[in-house]
Amino acid sequence: MPPTDPGPVPAVLDPSSEVTALTAAICDVPSVSRDETALADAVEAALQGLGHLEVLRVDNTLVARTHLGRAERVVLAGHLDTVPISTFPGGATPNVPTRLVEGELWGRGTVDMKGGVAVMLRIAHLVPEPSRDLTFLFYECEEIEADLNGLARLGARRPELLAGDFAVLLEPTGAAIEGGCKGSLRVDVTTTGVAAHSARPWNGHNAIHDAAEVLSRLAGYRAATVTVDGLDYHEALQAVGIEGGIAGNVIPDRCVVRVNYRFAPDKSVDAAFEHVRGVFEGFECVLGDAVAGARPGLHLPAAQAFVAALGLPVGPKEGWTDVARFAELGIPAVNFGPGDPNLAHMDDERCPVVQYGRAEQALLRWLS
Amino acid sequence: MPPTDPGPVPAVLDPSSEVTALTAAICDVPSVSRDETALADAVEAALQGLGHLEVLRVDNTLVARTHLGRAERVVLAGHLDTVPISTFPGGATPNVPTRLVEGELWGRGTVDMKGGVAVMLRIAHLVPEPSRDLTFLFYECEEIEADLNGLARLGARRPELLAGDFAVLLEPTGAAIEGGCKGSLRVDVTTTGVAAHSARPWNGHNAIHDAAEVLSRLAGYRAATVTVDGLDYHEALQAVGIEGGIAGNVIPDRCVVRVNYRFAPDKSVDAAFEHVRGVFEGFECVLGDAVAGARPGLHLPAAQAFVAALGLPVGPKEGWTDVARFAELGIPAVNFGPGDPNLAHMDDERCPVVQYGRAEQALLRWLS
Repeated sequence: MPPTDPGPVPAVLDPSSEVTALTAAICDVPSVSRDETALADAVEAALQGLGHLEVLRVDNTLVARTHLGRAERVVLAGHLDTVPISTFPGGATPNVPTRLVEGELWGRGTVDMKGGVAVMLRIAHLVPEPSRDLTFLFYECEEIEADLNGLARLGARRPELLAGDFAVLLEPTGAAIEGGCKGSLRVDVTTTGVAAHSARPWNGHNAIHDAAEVLSRLAGYRAATVTVDGLDYHEALQAVGIEGGIAGNVIPDRCVVRVNYRFAPDKSVDAAFEHVRGVFEGFECVLGDAVAGARPGLHLPAAQAFVAALGLPVGPKEGWTDVARFAELGIPAVNFGPGDPNLAHMDDERCPVVQYGRAEQALLRWLS
Repeated sequence: MPPTDPGPVPAVLDPSSEVTALTAAICDVPSVSRDETALADAVEAALQGLGHLEVLRVDNTLVARTHLGRAERVVLAGHLDTVPISTFPGGATPNVPTRLVEGELWGRGTVDMKGGVAVMLRIAHLVPEPSRDLTFLFYECEEIEADLNGLARLGARRPELLAGDFAVLLEPTGAAIEGGCKGSLRVDVTTTGVAAHSARPWNGHNAIHDAAEVLSRLAGYRAATVTVDGLDYHEALQAVGIEGGIAGNVIPDRCVVRVNYRFAPDKSVDAAFEHVRGVFEGFECVLGDAVAGARPGLHLPAAQAFVAALGLPVGPKEGWTDVARFAELGIPAVNFGPGDPNLAHMDDERCPVVQYGRAEQALLRWLS
């Protein structure tokens, strides 16, 4: 009889270790979406080990809270999952575990967003008696379908655990402050023709040829820059897919152009869809996935205190992030975390390690 | 022990029966491409039963020949297979077996091209001593990939069986004579961009937007009508497919427009591809499937005798047909058969039964 498999050795994270080393240790526990259990176990053990936090777990989402009776409660949030592991550039070596090369930490999660997770654990360790009550939220499944998102699911099932006056989402911002986020919607713009044999096209009508006008309007579209609460959001209207054709000898009777509109947070989803319908007037438009943006809310006292304490530049968030989920719950939120967002999800994902330290120091200034 | 399965009862075809009844009987033996054995068996048995023909079989392709020492040999050719069985319009009833409704025979194969097969069997029965030596060719797999085509395979392996001075392919022409056929080629026209997140399109370049120009050139293209050997061929340049897009939040870095060019038989494949490259100058063009057309050859004595004997109108064949394979073998060939080619492959495939009789009578005039 073979010996019983003892199972994998649990990963151990030490919040007292230096922030770059802690980031590397977190990255080295793979946690692709839907496979976050090992990392959630390690983070839970580390939080429990600190002794001063109430720790709750729902699936692979963790909530750790102080209860000091402060006048304000602040939420620090970060997701535990990453997109799939790929390879380091120019080779077949997986980009987990990480590598430290000339002051940069390379590998999956170094930007999106295990540096932020490390900073959260460091703050939990360094500030047992923060100036504001703290809620640390570590959640699962941010990189995949919205209905699996740990933050969305907790907000729907136990919103009281997310209660707070202000939230900081530690998504990568290059360690600047990014307020709010743009909304996003997808619209299928469809042309309809009549199928026929391609040797006798005069018996039909080519739906792909009709899409020339759809693409021309897209290519000629000049996207607006919209100022909301003092920040400039750069809108975008782009084709993200096109599909048409039945067979190599058939005039296609249908062509679908999938369009993605990224819109400033001054617009509702309805208003944004109206705008897209106007652009493609005369064509059939069907709304697909849609999420509203979030206004930056930087005029709110909690946000102003944050900006003042950090003393860092403030800009708009161009991408959609889970700050919009906090906005839905009525909690103003900003993005602030180490890493260049342009390097998220890339094979060459990497972050100058000084950014991890600077993000930790900035939050310490605010919360000590 | 269960009784041994006796297997299906073989279909029986009687070439002495009236041509519409014979067409219906042939249609009622399903023979979708790759599944022609039952029909080939029945046709082989019918040919053997006539007693005056040498009958050879290669897979499901049959060659039946007279050897009367005539000055000319003529090939009559038709394929045994059909496209898949679908349903009669407006219902869930399969379009095999056939139905006779108000003078029209409805069902799969009634146009493409079991009426022609029936006419061939009738001629074999009615004209045991034709004015010209006859080669009847019944072949498999015309409706699918070229490398399975029974005529092409026989031409490659045993070209002597196809030898002749003139060939008539009994594809549907509405019982007129159609000379030659257009060539066909497919070209992939590709645009290339740079992928980026769709919230920050300024970091990338949208390949689908660039395809606007490709589609505009297609939509604005005016196809030529080219006169070859006295017949007018209507060319056509049409998109038959388009594809682009990586994900709903990514600027696409590639878009491929698949174009089908149907060109008059005055052009080689090379010349036709050059023409397409000229239309899409500035874009990457890759040649896919390509087949040359066939000149009508109606100036040749054998063809002129055929036209004179039939006394029917002569026009160009717009679609590509296997007459081009005869042209490759150096045998002038025309299309002549019952059925409206616009109804081929349709759910409402059907043919006025008078066309079967007229086609039979026309060939009788020529060969008796």
